[in-house]
Amino acid sequence: MKEKLKKHIENLIALTDDEFSFILSHFSYEKYKKNDFIIQEGENVKDCYLVVTGLIKLVYDDKNGKQHIVSFAMEDWWESDFSAYFSQTKAKMSLQCIEDTIVFSLSFKNYQKLSAELPKMKQFFLEKSNSGYIASQNRILSFLTSNAKERYEQLLKQYPLLFQRVPKIILASYLGVSRETLSRLSS
Amino acid sequence: MKEKLKKHIENLIALTDDEFSFILSHFSYEKYKKNDFIIQEGENVKDCYLVVTGLIKLVYDDKNGKQHIVSFAMEDWWESDFSAYFSQTKAKMSLQCIEDTIVFSLSFKNYQKLSAELPKMKQFFLEKSNSGYIASQNRILSFLTSNAKERYEQLLKQYPLLFQRVPKIILASYLGVSRETLSRLSS
Repeated sequence: MKEKLKKHIENLIALTDDEFSFILSHFSYEKYKKNDFIIQEGENVKDCYLVVTGLIKLVYDDKNGKQHIVSFAMEDWWESDFSAYFSQTKAKMSLQCIEDTIVFSLSFKNYQKLSAELPKMKQFFLEKSNSGYIASQNRILSFLTSNAKERYEQLLKQYPLLFQRVPKIILASYLGVSRETLSRLSS
Repeated sequence: MKEKLKKHIENLIALTDDEFSFILSHFSYEKYKKNDFIIQEGENVKDCYLVVTGLIKLVYDDKNGKQHIVSFAMEDWWESDFSAYFSQTKAKMSLQCIEDTIVFSLSFKNYQKLSAELPKMKQFFLEKSNSGYIASQNRILSFLTSNAKERYEQLLKQYPLLFQRVPKIILASYLGVSRETLSRLSS
């Protein structure tokens, strides 16, 4: 399992075995069952997560009790309520498992420690953050420029695996459409 | 003017005079007139920009010729087509001045050089990128959870200055509503 973490980091940054051992010692390894909450709204957010296997959703429950999907994360993706993580405050969103899921977790203290003690890891986090920012900008753009049908088609093209793994009602929530609209789009 | 750059960086990271001189040597200083393009769609994106004075808009022109506002940037904000900047490819978006604007520009080469040679600057860029990511996530959330009236009120509360400086038609485009809808909201 630790080989997956090594490979994930080495996609961006070459590591010696000693460096990887040092990095690994800052991560924990956690298993969750389908429907388990990794983060619950209102709790302190101590960790961010790298998905090893499984699928999770970051959700926001609005004041009317409606659930909105902010993002999905599957193998090799990082997820957390990053606003709460970086400010070490309480979660505004929840992180819940759509499938049985295994993650590597990294506390904010260890994130800072790794960044400070290993410049390579600071570089790794910088590149990850830049990629995340770009992905968010693209999602904003798709909200501004695309209708539901186009957003559906973009997602299908970009992440075909998601369509097999995510229940239709959750996919509809991610796209910001009703279940009925999604059925029309996908038929 | 260079004092503004120093203060901007020192909001996050303490610098010696020598460090700041080294940093400053990697930036250029550029003046633009209202309506000038800093980045034009289709051109190579070499630089990102810190606004010293003025106001700019990052826009995307869709295939039907409709312009969408992805973001604004005013004093102390960074802006670019970051996807193109970080991958050193051609701009999908344009960056245009709403007011006469002065910026500090930083080439990608100098971004990498500063990151590599001064760990403090890597830390600065990491914190800026994390903040940008969080702001984008909040904007996604507001698209998912808020109607036009609520998005209007959030923006008014968060950035009251923008309302005095941005023409109504541009504000409407940012909110993803028609000019007429915005007039109803603001009356």
